[in-house]
Amino acid sequence: MPDCGDCVDCKSHKSNLCSKFPFKVSPWMPRYENSSRFIDLNGHTLFHFLNVSSFSEYTVLDVANVVKIDSSISPSRACLLSCGVSTGVGAAWETAKVEQGSTVVIFGLGSIGLAVAEGARLCGASRIIGVDINPAKFEVGQKFGVTEFVNSRTCENKRVSEVINEMTSGGADYCFECVGSSSLVQEAYSCCRQGWGKTITLGVDKPGSQICLDSFDVLHHGKTLMGSLFGGLKAKTHIPLLLKRYLSNELELDKFVTHEMKFEDINDAFQLLLEGKCIRCVMWMG
Amino acid sequence: MPDCGDCVDCKSHKSNLCSKFPFKVSPWMPRYENSSRFIDLNGHTLFHFLNVSSFSEYTVLDVANVVKIDSSISPSRACLLSCGVSTGVGAAWETAKVEQGSTVVIFGLGSIGLAVAEGARLCGASRIIGVDINPAKFEVGQKFGVTEFVNSRTCENKRVSEVINEMTSGGADYCFECVGSSSLVQEAYSCCRQGWGKTITLGVDKPGSQICLDSFDVLHHGKTLMGSLFGGLKAKTHIPLLLKRYLSNELELDKFVTHEMKFEDINDAFQLLLEGKCIRCVMWMG
Repeated sequence: MPDCGDCVDCKSHKSNLCSKFPFKVSPWMPRYENSSRFIDLNGHTLFHFLNVSSFSEYTVLDVANVVKIDSSISPSRACLLSCGVSTGVGAAWETAKVEQGSTVVIFGLGSIGLAVAEGARLCGASRIIGVDINPAKFEVGQKFGVTEFVNSRTCENKRVSEVINEMTSGGADYCFECVGSSSLVQEAYSCCRQGWGKTITLGVDKPGSQICLDSFDVLHHGKTLMGSLFGGLKAKTHIPLLLKRYLSNELELDKFVTHEMKFEDINDAFQLLLEGKCIRCVMWMG
Repeated sequence: MPDCGDCVDCKSHKSNLCSKFPFKVSPWMPRYENSSRFIDLNGHTLFHFLNVSSFSEYTVLDVANVVKIDSSISPSRACLLSCGVSTGVGAAWETAKVEQGSTVVIFGLGSIGLAVAEGARLCGASRIIGVDINPAKFEVGQKFGVTEFVNSRTCENKRVSEVINEMTSGGADYCFECVGSSSLVQEAYSCCRQGWGKTITLGVDKPGSQICLDSFDVLHHGKTLMGSLFGGLKAKTHIPLLLKRYLSNELELDKFVTHEMKFEDINDAFQLLLEGKCIRCVMWMG
């Protein structure tokens, strides 16, 4: 996420959506419309993706996309905060502002969902309910603060939102959708609490998909729907803060890294990812 | 709106949706499932509507629905805060928490929309853009703080959200839908500002109507969708506060009352309402 520091958004504490360099999928540098400023040894253009060009040992970045970090921190931990873990932690901490003692539901216990659990744990949530179709995720989730688990495939005749509403006597304070399914956002909205419940979307659904809510429910139930891109975090401000909390043993980054591999084993790493056998697999480029 | 003072919602500063006596359309008292506790001279049951039984000189109310007010205030002004004016003012003040210097758009300049303008003016909004299909509403709106007007019937080939986005260089800080049209909520959402814009629904659409938002927009644009029932106000706490601001000449209630009539002229009053010729018409029962 760019953080130019100059635009009205970067100067506001309310937004992390840099308006000078809006978030977009582009092969170019944010400041140059038709140049990546990046070539291989033969002079051929190398294209960017999301301003980072992953899987390369060297790259060219705009200063708006660079964050200076404490050099005592291993790149294998710092890299987690460039996306993913920061997104989940930030969604709980900065977007939802989860309060002490509250009840949180997380739909989808992949890396992002687990990072939401970690963020909710740091914010002092007392109940963190994980929802997934893979029962093995409960054991994994517990390491990240998940206290209860719902397998949405075994809810019998009930909708998962009904099960959550029963478990929480009327809904959770915060629901996070970390799968990327608009219908699951609707389920999440249905089981966040009347009066103050917040539903936060983090998952990416197919282009054009719609989140449809009953207008009566929206008006009468006092709930809030919000999206959270990069967890609402401002890269240059919040990444150093999160790393400080890592160094003080509050934010537990180590448990996200289940594997570290060399670049030549990247295909094995993808295989682990496809099989759901890793959380984060760090690739060493050198 | 009931305010029992005992339930978890009434005790929380975050909710105005009493969970002991949930808001519902019922002919009965909230505490008694099958009694209105209200009869005429012949002993026949008189039914309630929304717990108030309007258009009667005497009624029976539950203490959860009664607010004690300063006796120096005329009932012709205090009555405005039982609904409508309080809803609009509260939506700006309590639900949206409109900030000093912000830009507000109000879709629909009926009593509720004008009350939102009054609330936004009190919160220090610097631009209050009114949207209506009746151009006469601009002159009316100016008395309530509306600074600019958009006639949504004369936007040529543009959507009203496009016009607002151009006027505000990217969207308003707060958009209020006061008509009761789900498609207008979508328009409002489209022209509230990326990064921090809030869309607040106050209008009542047909039962079953859906508010559909593009999932990509929800995730990527950092906007918030909220409903506002009774402006998010807690009756027993906030009505006395609003009346205090009326007595100190901050909240201008007088301008809402365009007509005062006797009960026997109620049909004339309804005619004024149908023709859009009154804002609030107070009926004196005695």
